[in-house]
Formats: sequence, C-alpha cells, structure tokens
Amino acid sequence: MKKLINETKIRVRFSEVDSVGFVWHGHYVKYIEDGREAWGKQFGFSYMDMYHNKFIAPIVKVDIDYKSPLKTEDEAIITTEYIYTKAAKLTFNFTITNARTGKIVIKAKTIQIFMDLKENLMLSNPEFIDKWQQKYLF
Amino acid sequence: MKKLINETKIRVRFSEVDSVGFVWHGHYVKYIEDGREAWGKQFGFSYMDMYHNKFIAPIVKVDIDYKSPLKTEDEAIITTEYIYTKAAKLTFNFTITNARTGKIVIKAKTIQIFMDLKENLMLSNPEFIDKWQQKYLF
Amino acid sequence: MKKLINETKIRVRFSEVDSVGFVWHGHYVKYIEDGREAWGKQFGFSYMDMYHNKFIAPIVKVDIDYKSPLKTEDEAIITTEYIYTKAAKLTFNFTITNARTGKIVIKAKTIQIFMDLKENLMLSNPEFIDKWQQKYLF
Amino acid sequence: MKKLINETKIRVRFSEVDSVGFVWHGHYVKYIEDGREAWGKQFGFSYMDMYHNKFIAPIVKVDIDYKSPLKTEDEAIITTEYIYTKAAKLTFNFTITNARTGKIVIKAKTIQIFMDLKENLMLSNPEFIDKWQQKYLF
Repeated sequence: MKKLINETKIRVRFSEVDSVGFVWHGHYVKYIEDGREAWGKQFGFSYMDMYHNKFIAPIVKVDIDYKSPLKTEDEAIITTEYIYTKAAKLTFNFTITNARTGKIVIKAKTIQIFMDLKENLMLSNPEFIDKWQQKYLF
Repeated sequence: MKKLINETKIRVRFSEVDSVGFVWHGHYVKYIEDGREAWGKQFGFSYMDMYHNKFIAPIVKVDIDYKSPLKTEDEAIITTEYIYTKAAKLTFNFTITNARTGKIVIKAKTIQIFMDLKENLMLSNPEFIDKWQQKYLF
Repeated sequence: MKKLINETKIRVRFSEVDSVGFVWHGHYVKYIEDGREAWGKQFGFSYMDMYHNKFIAPIVKVDIDYKSPLKTEDEAIITTEYIYTKAAKLTFNFTITNARTGKIVIKAKTIQIFMDLKENLMLSNPEFIDKWQQKYLF
Repeated sequence: MKKLINETKIRVRFSEVDSVGFVWHGHYVKYIEDGREAWGKQFGFSYMDMYHNKFIAPIVKVDIDYKSPLKTEDEAIITTEYIYTKAAKLTFNFTITNARTGKIVIKAKTIQIFMDLKENLMLSNPEFIDKWQQKYLF
C-alpha cells in the first residue's frame, strides 16, 4: 500500500490573527481543509468528483491538538496523510509545521462518512472509492 | 409609503478582533447580513421565501464607510432600512452604532438584483416582491 | 460542587451554509466559542477579565463529533458545561441541539491552559481562577 | 511615476461557496486583502513594517461591485493596483478575474488612513511612506 501524503504551504493572513497575537484556533479547521483539498488535487479526489458520482462525504469528527501558535506573517507547511481503513470512511491525519522554526503547530485528524444525495448513510464504499483505491493506493 | 427599519443587537466575538485590537473590517459584511436577516424576519422576507418562489437575490454592490472601530466585547446596534426604488432591485442602508458610546461605527449600503434559478437576470420584479410590497410597504 | 451550565441560542446564517446545504463543519468552532462566551458572561469570566489579571487561556484541544447537520435558517441551542479538574486547565463540554427537532447536532470538548503575558505556561492556577472557583463553584 | 501592480492567484475553497452555489459575497473582502498582502510582499510594504514604524493603516472605505460569481473549485486572478494620491491615505483598486473564463468577477476599491499607535489620525504621511514612495514609486 502506498503512502499518500501531500505537503502544501500557507501564509497567515492579517485577518486570522487575534488580539493576543496568535492565529485564532478556529482558523485551523480551514487550514486542514486547505490541506485536504491540496491532497485531493494531487491524488485525483475532489468534492466535485464525489458530487458527480452522486455521493457526499460529510465530516463526522475533527480532533485538533494545539502545540504552538502561528503568528502574524508566519508561513506554515500542512502535511496531509490519507489513512486507510476497511470501513466506509475517509480518515486523514494532519501536521502543521511552522515553516521558519520547524516547530509543530498542530496535530489533527478528520473522519468523513459517505452519504448518497438523499443523505442516506452508505455502509460500504461508493464504487468511485473502490476504483480510486485500486488506482492510487494498492 | 412606510419606513421599514429593523434594529438588531450584536456582540463582538473574540475571534473577530484583530491583532491591532479592532474588529477586522471584513466582519462588517457579516454584521450587515445579520442586519438584513433580522430585517427579513421582521418584515416577512427570507432567503427561503425567495428560493421557494424560484428566484435568488445576489448582492451586486457593497459599499462600507468605516467611522470608528468596534473593539473586544463591544456591543453594537445594526439599523437596517429598506430603500424603495422602482428598479427590480433590493436596496438597503445600514448604520452600525456602538451600543455603549452611541458613536457611529459604519455606514453601509447593499444592492441586490433578482435572478431566476437558472441565473437569468430578471428585469422586472418577481411577483413575490410586488405582493410583498403591497402587504408591507404601501 | 455546583454545575455551571449555560444555554444560549443561535440562528444559522445564510453565509454559514455550504453548497451541499449543511452548515460548514468549521463554523461549529465559532458556535462553541459563542457558547463559552455566553457561559463566561453568566458566570463572571471573560477574556478581558483574564487579560486584566495578566494571563491568557489559549486553546490546546478541540474535539468535535458531528451527529446531524444544521441547515438554512435552523436555530440551535448551545449547552456549555464547565468541567472541574485539579489541573491548571479549563475544560468545557458542549452539546448543540437543533431547536426545532431536538436532535443532537454535535458533541464537543475544549481544553485551555494558562499562560502569563510572556507566553510562559502556568503550572498552577492563576489566583484569579482560585478566587473564581471559590465564588462560583464550591 | 511607476505603476505598482500585483497579480496573485487564488483557488475557491469548498467552505466559501454558499447554498446557491456562489462564493458568498463577504469572502471577497478576504480575497482583496490577499491581493493587498501579495502586493505588499512584492513592493516592500507589510503590516509588520508599518507596526515597527509605529503607525497603523485602518481601512476607512471598501466598495465592491460584483459582476459575475465565482463557483466551486474556480480559480481567480486578483489584480491589485496602488493608486497614488497627495492625501495621507493608501488607495488600492482591485479587479478579480475568473482564471478559466477571463470574465470579470468583481471590481473593488479600498482606502486606508494612517494612525499612530495611540489611534490619533495622522494628517500627513508617516516618514516610512515618504521613503517608500521615493524608493518604489518615483
């Protein structure tokens, strides 16, 4: 099984820094979605692909551990890794690292499930996922 | 013609204050949308009503003049006024006032046009708008 | 020991609903901060109080489990509960419930640590916290 | 006098698209700030430079005209142009263009004033601005 890991760089925006001088903790949910989207672009997997294949993949879990804050004008590397499981789920691990200091900023994990367009839970992988795993993962 | 004016109160969130100590200027677009939604609730006019009547009302103009900043834990009054025009448009004027000091924070204006659900511009008012004006405005 | 629980109501904004029709998952971090701020207002505990007492309380953990989505124009109840621990930390549990259906929307947990204004970790509670616990909790 | 124009590319995020399928209009304030920050990086002008020179440049005006919407997974070019005026102000014009279709998405303008760190309005340019104009503009 291949490791499917993407690295993408972000730059802290002025509007993301709070009055204490730290990036507000909620913005990291957006950063890890940036990571997941960059990962999807690299490995042939986008929201639109899912939608055209008549399923969606809503987030059911976000866990973030904050290690050190990003500050004004910092740049950071988002590392996004696909975690294979047998269950009909998408799991990703994320590490954000300060690009200047190398310090770990956050560790995070997200889990997504599959639903058809009528919002019924899919208990096994959509065909699209099986084909995608054959092409990219195995 | 009646004046259709709503007043609604907001409280500045920690996450909305920037590193200089001011509410970041972009958040005021959200505040005036809060004003427009509170206005819509008072005067029978919501996004869902429009959608069920098979049109949308995208924003085509936002002008904001910033007079004095809101800061941490400030509360403010958003005053939203419907401006009648003959054109097939929705126009609103907004004033946000600091609830403690009474100082004007911003003055703003938005203009919306009407489109059918295939994104064609509607050159005259949707029937819903005519009926709504008869009921609330005249 | 008293239970310190706040309930506050929110209304979904148009801008918070994604193209699938669900509130985007990242907005819940803001909602639970709304809960924590309403809790703080009820129980005498604000960011400004901390700052005036020369410490800050950065978030070190956010865990969110998503149970059912909020949608356009939904209203929801945020229940915020303070969880006492002996450690020099602030822990809160959150439940968001759909105000119309009563369904649970999310369960969440946040942990905050204490730092002085030079960003040094405080290993024991700031005096402000001890006094606050005496007044409100015991 | 030189023309100081920056072009930077952005990609629409999933979280920025509303339930109608358009990028929510408020996100464009963030996009044009992205443009201004990229411009500042190219032409030696950042929030931190200002802060170290003991002044800030709060926004006093944002005008946006929306021409055509960005949608899911679109990419766009932000063109940011510095507009010289004799007044102690910073003025920028922005055009956002759909990278695929070439269609204009928005036209916008922002004006900033200068304040010292005690929030007093500066009626003439800070020395930093004069020097910067000598180096980059004339």
